[in-house]
Amino acid sequence: MYLRNCWYAAAWSRDIEPNKPFARTICEEPVVIFKTESGQLVALEDRCVHRRAPLSLGRIKGETIECGYHGLQYDCSGRCVRIPGQQDIPERARVRAYPLADKWRWLWIWLGNPEMADESLIPDVHWNDSPGWVSPGDTLHMNGHYQLLIDNLLDLSHLTFLHERTIGTSMVAETPMKAEAAGDRVRVTRWIIDQEAPPMFKKAGGFTENVDRWQIIEWTPPGLVLIDVGCAPHGTGAPEGDRSQGIEARSINLITPETAKTHHYLWSYARNYNIENIELTEFLLRAVGETFLEDKEMLEGQQARAESDDRQDWTIDLKVDSGPMQARRILERLIGEELGAVASAAE
Amino acid sequence: MYLRNCWYAAAWSRDIEPNKPFARTICEEPVVIFKTESGQLVALEDRCVHRRAPLSLGRIKGETIECGYHGLQYDCSGRCVRIPGQQDIPERARVRAYPLADKWRWLWIWLGNPEMADESLIPDVHWNDSPGWVSPGDTLHMNGHYQLLIDNLLDLSHLTFLHERTIGTSMVAETPMKAEAAGDRVRVTRWIIDQEAPPMFKKAGGFTENVDRWQIIEWTPPGLVLIDVGCAPHGTGAPEGDRSQGIEARSINLITPETAKTHHYLWSYARNYNIENIELTEFLLRAVGETFLEDKEMLEGQQARAESDDRQDWTIDLKVDSGPMQARRILERLIGEELGAVASAAE
Amino acid sequence: MYLRNCWYAAAWSRDIEPNKPFARTICEEPVVIFKTESGQLVALEDRCVHRRAPLSLGRIKGETIECGYHGLQYDCSGRCVRIPGQQDIPERARVRAYPLADKWRWLWIWLGNPEMADESLIPDVHWNDSPGWVSPGDTLHMNGHYQLLIDNLLDLSHLTFLHERTIGTSMVAETPMKAEAAGDRVRVTRWIIDQEAPPMFKKAGGFTENVDRWQIIEWTPPGLVLIDVGCAPHGTGAPEGDRSQGIEARSINLITPETAKTHHYLWSYARNYNIENIELTEFLLRAVGETFLEDKEMLEGQQARAESDDRQDWTIDLKVDSGPMQARRILERLIGEELGAVASAAE
Repeated sequence: MYLRNCWYAAAWSRDIEPNKPFARTICEEPVVIFKTESGQLVALEDRCVHRRAPLSLGRIKGETIECGYHGLQYDCSGRCVRIPGQQDIPERARVRAYPLADKWRWLWIWLGNPEMADESLIPDVHWNDSPGWVSPGDTLHMNGHYQLLIDNLLDLSHLTFLHERTIGTSMVAETPMKAEAAGDRVRVTRWIIDQEAPPMFKKAGGFTENVDRWQIIEWTPPGLVLIDVGCAPHGTGAPEGDRSQGIEARSINLITPETAKTHHYLWSYARNYNIENIELTEFLLRAVGETFLEDKEMLEGQQARAESDDRQDWTIDLKVDSGPMQARRILERLIGEELGAVASAAE
Repeated sequence: MYLRNCWYAAAWSRDIEPNKPFARTICEEPVVIFKTESGQLVALEDRCVHRRAPLSLGRIKGETIECGYHGLQYDCSGRCVRIPGQQDIPERARVRAYPLADKWRWLWIWLGNPEMADESLIPDVHWNDSPGWVSPGDTLHMNGHYQLLIDNLLDLSHLTFLHERTIGTSMVAETPMKAEAAGDRVRVTRWIIDQEAPPMFKKAGGFTENVDRWQIIEWTPPGLVLIDVGCAPHGTGAPEGDRSQGIEARSINLITPETAKTHHYLWSYARNYNIENIELTEFLLRAVGETFLEDKEMLEGQQARAESDDRQDWTIDLKVDSGPMQARRILERLIGEELGAVASAAE
Repeated sequence: MYLRNCWYAAAWSRDIEPNKPFARTICEEPVVIFKTESGQLVALEDRCVHRRAPLSLGRIKGETIECGYHGLQYDCSGRCVRIPGQQDIPERARVRAYPLADKWRWLWIWLGNPEMADESLIPDVHWNDSPGWVSPGDTLHMNGHYQLLIDNLLDLSHLTFLHERTIGTSMVAETPMKAEAAGDRVRVTRWIIDQEAPPMFKKAGGFTENVDRWQIIEWTPPGLVLIDVGCAPHGTGAPEGDRSQGIEARSINLITPETAKTHHYLWSYARNYNIENIELTEFLLRAVGETFLEDKEMLEGQQARAESDDRQDWTIDLKVDSGPMQARRILERLIGEELGAVASAAE
């Protein structure tokens, strides 16, 4: 079960090239995304109504996409508007069309009721597309349930253990955090005061003395985990400092289910310092990407170990799970509410 | 369910080398094909009656095949005739033997009742083995239901879209065709008069002016689609022309199920012009092979899109589906009749 | 179903390196094996009690293994002894710990009731770790039911057919063997008197004349097949000869189920002649390993042919199956007794 009346990150805006349909499965639905000749971005079911050929193997023709098999053309609403060799087009010759928005350099797709697709509900991740910020990022395919990645990001105590070579220090796990829900969001805050900076931050910020470090994580359902992360020389950092001598970043993590066992991970790492330093940008793209490969290996190991285990209630929860568990409960409630609304509408 | 009392193309005759058993799964049955020392071609169940080892890992011994594991020998009727280390051979030590015929440079196998295996029922594809014709061809493994390939070949309107780089022109899909059943066969005819020749034909035939072009497709159950295809200078081509200044070919397509989701595609492209031009032969082998890889990609995409879709009656049929749908109905009826005959024989 | 109150070979002792947890699935249970800083060898369930991360992705910390994800530490009994960021450790925070013994250069694991794990029950394969013997060996992963490999080793008549290029001669299958059960063990004995030596033995022993050859195979449940194999100049060999001019070896074969369709094959080939000849040792490592690849191909073919066959009672048993069939019956009985004991304990 997936939340459907919500925006999922479908792709980077840059992923969609002219005349090149882009295929991605989202919540078990095959989707083709393309740009029409006039530049409109469109998301349709990636399955021709004739013989189920993937439309993504077809081509753009004006404001339509043409199936590469027998030439059926679909307009931006998913309606079939041309069938070669015949005049009649059955009324039911339609594929699903999904509301799609291009915002913050990402494409956002709405799988649920199109009438509810309000673009103002797209979460604010303007750091990915704002002057004064530069934000390298990439996409990873993860062989595991998407909730495992939300768990991962809402509990950064794993930095100490999983990422000790890059961004971890022992202080992360040792420092208490505070997890709280605000409406449907979950916020986890951790202040690490007067400690050595982790290797990647040291290199990026040139710190030689101890720093104050902060991690303010916010999950917005279903799949955004936004992390306000940075450090500043001790005394100028969080909570009361002005951060002005520090380095600051937004780790933007967009998690989009593919199937019950796989998901897409679109991430960017936005910063507001040394933004014209291309080498630093490339370093961060590479270093963060390598860090996330460590998460990928661990998460895929968890998935495999879960699939070979049929014991209920065997695992234990920790204090650090407070954030992840609040998020799980909220998402479960939201999906339940959505199903309930569908059921009562059907009565 | 597969039609069983019929001939399937099992392999090219050339696939069977001396002393080298050949393994292929046909309609979910593992089959080993081999040539005995005296030259007899034999098809047996590829599974030793002892511990189910593949006989295809064994070797030819005289008029028998010897299991490569413990040396059981089977004669051409599938009877075990030697068990090393013991004199007694149980009467039931037998594997299935399949009637096999070597005709038109292909091997044809009969999976059903051997008493009904009449070689005169092997479809006439003499172009693959006749003086005056040369016919390069190959075998492809396809990850999709075999009916998808029959659909493909009985409706060549896809040439316009899927094969525009090789044999397609817009005229194919635009030109009406006529589909008719004759007994258990289905024939689809399309005349394309006074049009530009498609690229591959241009190169092969050296046409500079418009041509008349024909596609006369005939499906013979279960798995032959024979296409009489060619073009001739406008006015000398079909239907009333004598074709004498044209180029003419038979695209012979043999479709053999492997499993419910895979099949073997044995094809040849026979022509009666420039038959001593080896470069042209090699060009056609390559070009037709590349064309069929386009079909393979599309068909495998269809298969994947069908497996992730549980909606019944969602797809629509087109006018161009008339041929494929007649073939589907005939095949369904034939399989039903065969099951009915088995059931009444059992009463 | 697997026998559980028994020792399985889990790994070669050499497989476990310091600071490097070793992962292997045994009888469908993921196991991590590691050496603590003090040198103790430990086998635990390879699944963190927190979120099921593989402990094998973690690291050794003193006498514990630390999960690489959130830093939970487990002692050698599987008890969680540290949870970063919190003092309370739930009593039920435990993973399974398996008795593990390091003997004969192999690690032996006990999956069943730990109280019954008596190291004196580890089968005697001292040839793998004795002065006067040298024993190269390796590990193979096999895609087939483990019983297929026990069958294979208890009936060496397959040497004649499957291994004719290396250790087979026609005489093996032609020579009668005797199979007998002794308690829960099965012994198969075959004397081959006054025959040509097989190629590998010829090379190793330098025989130019006929030899007496013996194969004394003993299966100990669940997964040891020990083969006393060798040859000596005719008249000095078995049964009454003193073997002193011959060459003698112990083929030690340890078969450990991974899943219902896969297993691990740990083998060594111990000999008591030319033991300082490193080239011979390397030759044997390579030659035996290549021989076993022939078994692997055949066994995996059997597995595939069995999975596509739903006929019961179709196969036949041969005289040479006497050993394998006695072993199958004993193993079935032992598993049944074990289940019965568990059931009556539960009453």
